[in-house]
Order: sequence, then C-alpha cells, then structure tokens
Amino acid sequence: MHSFKDLVTGFNEQFSNRHFPEMPSSLYEPCEYFLTIGGKRIRPVLCLMGNELFDTIQPDAYKVANAVELFHNFTLVHDDMMDDASLRRGMETVHVKYNQSTALLSGDVMMIRAYEYLTGIGSGHIHKILELFNKTAREVCEGQQLDMDFEKQQQVLLNDYIQMISLKTSVLLAASLAMGAIIGGAGEGNCGHLYEFGKNLGIAFQIQDDYLDAFGDPGKFGKEVGGDIKQNKKTFLLLHALEVASDEQRKQLEQLMAENPADKIEQVLAIYRSCGVDAWANTLKTQYLNTALKHLEDIAVVSARKQPLKELADYLIQREV
Amino acid sequence: MHSFKDLVTGFNEQFSNRHFPEMPSSLYEPCEYFLTIGGKRIRPVLCLMGNELFDTIQPDAYKVANAVELFHNFTLVHDDMMDDASLRRGMETVHVKYNQSTALLSGDVMMIRAYEYLTGIGSGHIHKILELFNKTAREVCEGQQLDMDFEKQQQVLLNDYIQMISLKTSVLLAASLAMGAIIGGAGEGNCGHLYEFGKNLGIAFQIQDDYLDAFGDPGKFGKEVGGDIKQNKKTFLLLHALEVASDEQRKQLEQLMAENPADKIEQVLAIYRSCGVDAWANTLKTQYLNTALKHLEDIAVVSARKQPLKELADYLIQREV
Repeated sequence: MHSFKDLVTGFNEQFSNRHFPEMPSSLYEPCEYFLTIGGKRIRPVLCLMGNELFDTIQPDAYKVANAVELFHNFTLVHDDMMDDASLRRGMETVHVKYNQSTALLSGDVMMIRAYEYLTGIGSGHIHKILELFNKTAREVCEGQQLDMDFEKQQQVLLNDYIQMISLKTSVLLAASLAMGAIIGGAGEGNCGHLYEFGKNLGIAFQIQDDYLDAFGDPGKFGKEVGGDIKQNKKTFLLLHALEVASDEQRKQLEQLMAENPADKIEQVLAIYRSCGVDAWANTLKTQYLNTALKHLEDIAVVSARKQPLKELADYLIQREV
Repeated sequence: MHSFKDLVTGFNEQFSNRHFPEMPSSLYEPCEYFLTIGGKRIRPVLCLMGNELFDTIQPDAYKVANAVELFHNFTLVHDDMMDDASLRRGMETVHVKYNQSTALLSGDVMMIRAYEYLTGIGSGHIHKILELFNKTAREVCEGQQLDMDFEKQQQVLLNDYIQMISLKTSVLLAASLAMGAIIGGAGEGNCGHLYEFGKNLGIAFQIQDDYLDAFGDPGKFGKEVGGDIKQNKKTFLLLHALEVASDEQRKQLEQLMAENPADKIEQVLAIYRSCGVDAWANTLKTQYLNTALKHLEDIAVVSARKQPLKELADYLIQREV
C-alpha cells in the first residue's frame, strides 16, 4: 500500500512527459504549458488509490488517471475563460497568455486526449469505465452551468447549492476513486461505497474551503481571507446566513453586498457569527465527513488497505479549524 | 442498397429525437436548439453508407453516425465562437442566441454526448472505432488551429493549405465512411481505400466550393458570389493566384486586398482569369475526384454495392461548372 504522497510522486513521474505531438505548436504548446503549471493531482491519485484498495496498481489505472487529470485541466482552461480569470496557480491562464480561440481549442483537444488514454483500456473494463467517465464529464458541465445560473439568481436554496457543488467538484473525485476500483476488479457494491466516500468527502472539503475563506487564519490559508465576501460569491455560509438571518440582518447583508463599504468583510463576518454560521458550517462539514467515513468502512476489504484513504481524509479535512 | 437520400431520411428519423436530458435546461436547450436547425447530415449518412458497402446496416452504425453528427455540431458551435459568426444555416448561432459561456459549455457537452454514443458499441469494434474517432477529432482541432494561424500569415503555401483543409474538413468525411466500414467487418485494406475515397472527395468538394464562391452562378450557388474575395479569405484560388501571378499582378492583388475598392470583386476575378486560376481549379478538382474514384474502384466488393457512393460523388462534384 502506498500513501497519497508516494502516489503523487509516482503519478507525476510518468505524467510529466509530453502528452501531445509537437505540431502544430500553436495548438499543443498551450496544452503542455497548462499541464506543467502544476496542480495537486488529487483526482488521478484518487484513481490509483481506488485501484490499490482492491489490487496491485494496474497499468490501466494509470491510463484512467491520466485521462482524469487531462479532463480536469480541460475544465480549468474553459472555466478560466468563462470566469475571465487571468491567473491560475499564480501563472497566466491560457486565454490570457495566448488568446480566446486558442484556449477554446486547447481545452477541446485536452478532452479528446483524455479519451485517447481511456481507449487504451482493455476490453474487460472499457465499457464500464467509459460509462462512468462520460456520465461524470457531463455532470461536471452541468455543475458549471448551474454555478453560472446561480450567480445570476437572487435566491438559491442551500440544497440546490449542495447539488451544484456536488456536480461541479465532487462527482469527479468520486468517479476517480470508483474507476480505479473498477480496474481493480471491485464489484458494484464496493464501487458504490467508494464513490459515496469520494462524493461526501468532496462536499465536506468544499464546505471547509468556504469556511476558511471567511474564518481561516490568513497565514495558513494561502489566499486572501474574505475574498468570497468581497465578491458577493454565493457560498455555503452566505446561503445559510440568508436562510436563518432575522429580517433586519438580511437587510443589512443585502445592503452590504450592494454598497461594498470598506469594512464590508468585518461587518459580514459579524453577521455570520451572530447567526451562528461558523458553528453550523463546522457541523455540516463533520456530517459529510462522517458519511464519507461510514461508506469507507462499509467497503468489504480488510481495514489495513483502507488506511491511506483514511489518512487522506484526515489530511484534507481538519477536524478543528 | 439505399441511396444517399433514403439514408438521410432514415438517419433523421431517429436523430430528430432528443439527445439530452431536460435539466438543466440552460445547458441542454441550446444543444437541442442547435441540432434542430438542420444541416445536410452528410457525415452520419456516409457512416451508414460505409457500413452498407459491406453488410446490412448494423445498429452500431447508427451509434457511430449519431456520434459523428454530434461531434460535427460541437465543432460548429465552437467554430462560430472563434469566427464570431452570428448566423448558421440562417439561424442565430449559440453564442449569439444565448451567450459565450453557454456556447462553450454546450459545445463541450455535445462532444461528451458523442462519446456516450460510441460507448454503446460492442466489444468487437469499440477499440478500433474509438482510435479512429479520437485521431480524427484531434485532427479536426488541428485543422481549425491551422486555419486561424494561416489567416494571420502573409504567405501560405498551397500544399500547407491543402493539408489544413484536409484536416479541417476531409478527415471527418473519410473517418465517417471508414468507421461504418469497420462496423461492417471490412478489413484494413478496404477501410483504407474507403478512407482515401472520402478524403480526396472532401478536398475536391472544397476546391469546388472555393471555385463557386468566385465563379459560380449567383442563382444556383445560394450564397453571395465573391464573399471570399470581399473578406480576403485565403482560398485555393487566391493562394494559387499569388503563386503564379506576375509581379505586377501580385502587387495589384495585394493592393486590392488592402484597399477594398467598390469593384474589388470584379478586379480580382479579372486577375484570376488572366492567371488561368479558373481552369487550374477545375483541373485540380478533377484530379482529386479521380483519385477518390480510383480508391472506390479498388475496394474489394462487387461493383453494384458501390453504386450509391458513386452517385453521391457525382451529386457532390459537378464535372462541368
């Protein structure tokens, strides 16, 4: 059994090779550029971990891992266009460094490259893998569309937001694990539990991310604290605050969002605290984490094999923040 | 054996059903909209014809046909964004009717849907089909990138232009035929000849398209004659004219392109005629058509089975224009 960290190293060793032909360089150089600016490689490594839960790691698991990472990077290139983001991991995004058309096409060709890796999978598993991959890919697009729709809506229900987050980010984590398990020969029951482990862990992680953006220690968090509040971004915290706030607090919140005063972050945080949003977020996160761990427990393999996934969950989700 | 026309009807019968879920409608309605605005369905029907050349039409051929048509429409949605085209088949393009982000994501999800159809192909053929589909999909992206690169370049060699046209439009026609043949159980030799038939026919068609844009009968052509000249579009005609023109004619051409006088179309056409570009284009077209027909001849099936493809070639490429 390998730790998450070991598997990141192993994955990167083969992933750092070129994935595209040299020519036309106007199409493929932007792809290679974007793949080299890094990323945590969580999804492909989850695929390897899902595989190793049931078997020694198979060559086909690396193909799925590469496909998942290429697909993820395709979504980032296109999402950056939609959000008009100029930086990603501290580096210029593709549409800024090159141009919109190149980013559009580079993204397209990264998705096709993902399918080229999947095409290498043996006959025994290819149909199951493609079915799950396609379904997940479509769901990720649905999540991105819902995210954009929600940003334009006045009111978004918390449950709809959770569904959107689940589609936009969690299902790919879940599917990465489950595809690894399929390659490892796991049955439907075990694959299902592993999928739910990943999906619930992903939601817990997103709740934590929203929490840290508002309440995190600026030194540890690595991003500017309060960024979401500054941008009026719909988050778990804001949606819950709008649901539980008194009429007066809700009016205050809406006024702060409309007027953007200099002390907006402090004032919004004060309302969040007085509504108990911070404690609520921690409770909700713990609920999703516990659901994830329960599904991990229910997988029918010896406990020792689950250790790396348990450690990963502990590493990703801090119990005390 | 069925004619092209019969197969268009048969294809459309099943293709006119919905391809996407109802929700989220903000993502899927634009996809359905774009698919219903029509199109000649040449590529999917080529797939059915490729299949029927070797066998009765198999259910898997319809899956490939649907995938090819969805992929083609995905490229149109994204190409329209890159060209900032506002109309397609007389109807609003997706990024104009909705918005850029929706067009980006709708295109993405149409490509994924194409792969969903391919995933339904049986174990016997799925690897071969995916390999050819992926390769072709990547080549189409390369062709689009080269097309954009060439528009910015001062000089483009005719051979590079032919290579670009081949990637951008012909390989998908060729692959559609060949994938149908694969489903029909054809061997590599026959698939190769059918692929070359489609590829050369596609190039002949493009030469004819460029020719008709300049020299066509306005009543028959259906588009404004001289549109390419007006836009300084690089075409077979312009590139050849620039290669064979005298220094003085080349200067004149470049001046006309820079200054856009009111009688630009007439003046450019006069130069084309005096360089013999019109006769040259007809000869080149006939060469590609004959190469295509030679490959069709070399396919090892009885001649009668080839009749619908011969008729299609006759219909697409007029010997006298």
